[in-house]
Amino acid sequence: MVEWFWRRRPRIPAPRLRSKEDAPPPARVDLHEFTPEPPEFFARAAYVELVLFERLARAGTSTPTTAIRSALARAADAPLSRHRAFVTEIERMGADPGEAMDRRRAAVDRFQRLTVGADWLEDTATAHFAGGFLDDLFRSLATGLPVELQARTREILARRSEDGVCAVLLREAMERDERLQSRLALWGRRILGDAMLVARDALELGEDRSGAEQRIEPAFSELIADHTRRMDALGLSA
Amino acid sequence: MVEWFWRRRPRIPAPRLRSKEDAPPPARVDLHEFTPEPPEFFARAAYVELVLFERLARAGTSTPTTAIRSALARAADAPLSRHRAFVTEIERMGADPGEAMDRRRAAVDRFQRLTVGADWLEDTATAHFAGGFLDDLFRSLATGLPVELQARTREILARRSEDGVCAVLLREAMERDERLQSRLALWGRRILGDAMLVARDALELGEDRSGAEQRIEPAFSELIADHTRRMDALGLSA
Repeated sequence: MVEWFWRRRPRIPAPRLRSKEDAPPPARVDLHEFTPEPPEFFARAAYVELVLFERLARAGTSTPTTAIRSALARAADAPLSRHRAFVTEIERMGADPGEAMDRRRAAVDRFQRLTVGADWLEDTATAHFAGGFLDDLFRSLATGLPVELQARTREILARRSEDGVCAVLLREAMERDERLQSRLALWGRRILGDAMLVARDALELGEDRSGAEQRIEPAFSELIADHTRRMDALGLSA
Repeated sequence: MVEWFWRRRPRIPAPRLRSKEDAPPPARVDLHEFTPEPPEFFARAAYVELVLFERLARAGTSTPTTAIRSALARAADAPLSRHRAFVTEIERMGADPGEAMDRRRAAVDRFQRLTVGADWLEDTATAHFAGGFLDDLFRSLATGLPVELQARTREILARRSEDGVCAVLLREAMERDERLQSRLALWGRRILGDAMLVARDALELGEDRSGAEQRIEPAFSELIADHTRRMDALGLSA
């Protein structure tokens, strides 16, 4: 995390020797001005989590061992729990979750269709990398929600317990078969493009689209850098 | 439940006018003498729950509406939670859950292969009917576990929150399309046969197989009657 931070902002004086208490967290560019209305925000987030759940559940059905199959099923509990929590938020607003999700699901459906993995490894990588990217996006967008919803949303999005499991499973698979590394690196890069289309579609860009495009650029650069960091952590150069 | 009880044991004097407090629960024939060793019992139960989870997760991906898709995903949380709990029991015994499940999974794999539904309705019916039947079996077999494991096992098996969701979804679908009733009745009858093969395979019959066959007969009759009751509750005559 710290290393990546240096690479991206080499000109900022490095607080290298500061203790953890002194160092403020790196200021992130948030996307609050592009946050859709709360029901739409939660509907999109709920639908993305549903798709991530389905992806991990599907990954589990074509694994080489029952141990991996069980681990992926249990990992699928995390996006399912986030889905359930976002559905509850939609219901709290008096909206119908099914209808709310249906209204703007085209971009996510396209993502789902275009990123069907060749095997459990690609599906697991999708859940880990694209899921991490999109949850980061929703975390950034959540800053534009009414204050009382921000904390609950952050708390829901913090439940990414699948990341640890996915990372271990992918790392172990690459240790068993070194050729996997280049395939998964390529896959990770590819799904970033697909996930970015979902991300852009989730923003409320308003009328001044070209102005908006310029202003979302720094935030997207940060999201991409976080993706690169996740890839690096698995030895996958993006 | 009470009605079914009369049908099966017409000669027992009927405690019809007793209050609920006075009436003892109907004595059930349990299967304690056929219970396998605890690690094997939990491995089988864990694997069945994993398969039920996968079935509901799969059902969710081919539904007509996002609302049903979301409901099925959330229903899949129940077998997943039971799977997780049984895996924890296997780990507590110092055994490897993956290996333990692998050792005796053939009958369940066969069930999984033979009962792939034509649509989400058949998969949902499988999770509800076959899942209910097999969890009843494990509840009956649990009486043969060491005492300290019985309560935990009963508590795990009591978490069948998917039943309510499945029943509502199936009932609503049949209200929308009356022709479904005969198809689902047929399906429910068929998967009972497949589930019974899984059930028999889960028993430790010992050397005197023909004696054992005779002694399991009454317990299986009760399990089948419970299945019939579940079918009846949805207007599906078995």
